[in-house]
Amino acid sequence: MKNQFYSYIKDLQNQITKGLEKVDGKAQFKEDVWKRSEGGGGRSRILENGFVIEKGGVNISQVHGSLPESMQAYFKVGDVAFSACGLSLVIHPKNPMAPTVHANYRYFEMYDKSGKCIDQWFGGGLDLTPYYLFEEDAKHFHKQCKQACDEHHTEFYSDFKDKCDSYFYNAHRDEARGIGGLFFDYLRADKVFSISDRYNFVSSVGDSFLEAYLPILNRRKDLPYTSDQRNWQEIRRGRYVEFNLVHDKGTLFGLKTNGRIESVLMSLPPNVQWRYDYHPEKESEEAKLISILKNPVSWI
Amino acid sequence: MKNQFYSYIKDLQNQITKGLEKVDGKAQFKEDVWKRSEGGGGRSRILENGFVIEKGGVNISQVHGSLPESMQAYFKVGDVAFSACGLSLVIHPKNPMAPTVHANYRYFEMYDKSGKCIDQWFGGGLDLTPYYLFEEDAKHFHKQCKQACDEHHTEFYSDFKDKCDSYFYNAHRDEARGIGGLFFDYLRADKVFSISDRYNFVSSVGDSFLEAYLPILNRRKDLPYTSDQRNWQEIRRGRYVEFNLVHDKGTLFGLKTNGRIESVLMSLPPNVQWRYDYHPEKESEEAKLISILKNPVSWI
Repeated sequence: MKNQFYSYIKDLQNQITKGLEKVDGKAQFKEDVWKRSEGGGGRSRILENGFVIEKGGVNISQVHGSLPESMQAYFKVGDVAFSACGLSLVIHPKNPMAPTVHANYRYFEMYDKSGKCIDQWFGGGLDLTPYYLFEEDAKHFHKQCKQACDEHHTEFYSDFKDKCDSYFYNAHRDEARGIGGLFFDYLRADKVFSISDRYNFVSSVGDSFLEAYLPILNRRKDLPYTSDQRNWQEIRRGRYVEFNLVHDKGTLFGLKTNGRIESVLMSLPPNVQWRYDYHPEKESEEAKLISILKNPVSWI
Repeated sequence: MKNQFYSYIKDLQNQITKGLEKVDGKAQFKEDVWKRSEGGGGRSRILENGFVIEKGGVNISQVHGSLPESMQAYFKVGDVAFSACGLSLVIHPKNPMAPTVHANYRYFEMYDKSGKCIDQWFGGGLDLTPYYLFEEDAKHFHKQCKQACDEHHTEFYSDFKDKCDSYFYNAHRDEARGIGGLFFDYLRADKVFSISDRYNFVSSVGDSFLEAYLPILNRRKDLPYTSDQRNWQEIRRGRYVEFNLVHDKGTLFGLKTNGRIESVLMSLPPNVQWRYDYHPEKESEEAKLISILKNPVSWI
């Protein structure tokens, strides 16, 4: 399964970077292949200063070895071996009318001393972070999420949509990071689903990424905007940084387990502002976004 | 003691904001007085878009009540009452030749059910984060730190200087946040020092702040700089954000114990950049700074 999934995310990385380059029209992803001294490595692809994408990364990695102590405590297991592979992407468009997007698809295995696999699961999801809210975009994104889910189980969408709203939440700001999407974790084989069923579900979600995001990016990338709107985007990107550095488990794991820092932190936006106690004008487009982030809604 | 110290930091806040406004020459601190629903409150003073200071805050607070659960676990105590007061400041100058400075002076008391004080201590320090290294500035800053310490004990400076280098360390980047200063905590009464001796020490350090920082700010605030140097400052400010959001105990406490978020996060710089895998040219001034941050030196 781990070879099958790694092969899938290698293809998916190619497909996604090609699709994004085509929309950008100028910049190309730069590839960094890296090795992890304890076992495994990855292939990071980063794009900066494109026509459309100000900064973005689409990274894959496959790491293995002894489970680091901090992760033993987290997973409540002893000194076991593990293998983990996944694809992570974050795209920060230049135009404040175009939303930031994040997606992640991952697979984890643990082994006992004899090398026997004792646990295996999938996790991941995708979510959208707009700076200006176009309902049409939010509906399109969630519709694609729902379609990918519905092929596999009628309850997946509402379950994983709710998990996404709960997870990507800046508790210290009492607001969501964005307008959500899907979030799932610990998808194991059980009475209903085999591990192959889990694979089929996660790869359906992966396959839907470009169709979920590119139409939105295409609609918004050339809209006119003011410097005030650009400032608002940069202030909101500050909230993105706050979530990723304070709350995001994946980022903190990466930082605390000696991950490849530049690949872990590729998610941070290129230009960011923090102003003291900044609030948008009442009834403005900016205020409308905040009210949605404070009370996540159903988009379908 | 808590009244004596709060009265001291109220005066110190006045003195420091007055001194900084005089150097800035344009902007004035804006005051926000706030209350904490569980007991206490504070007086935040923030300055933005000055001639010299791009963003800065000098905040005092005095909070009390039941010790929040997360802090009970941290201090390894049960359900006790507490009182905490302190002054925190962070100044981000506009000119990349002028360093960012941080200082904090705080006092903590805990009480049993009968209201008897069962523990009390001081903590705090000050540290400098340059974007370009002027040895003259680092030496001046550390000399002022040492002078404030030497009046009280000959070992304080070297002890608290080392603690500062250890604490303000971005472990995930393997580099110090800046060139250090002083850091001390849990300064209790003991066989050698009474709690009044501790107060006298902390107030000496507080009194030395303006003399430690203003001469540096005055020397650097009007130096010419290029847009590349400004970009470098904004990239380095990204490391400041990483430290404060990932590692700084005070910030995380504030975020996780429902502190006043805008006062806690006033430390974040106004304009920040993250670029992928950015490294300065070899032997450049920027590379020289990094090499010092990777191997903290003795400045005296």
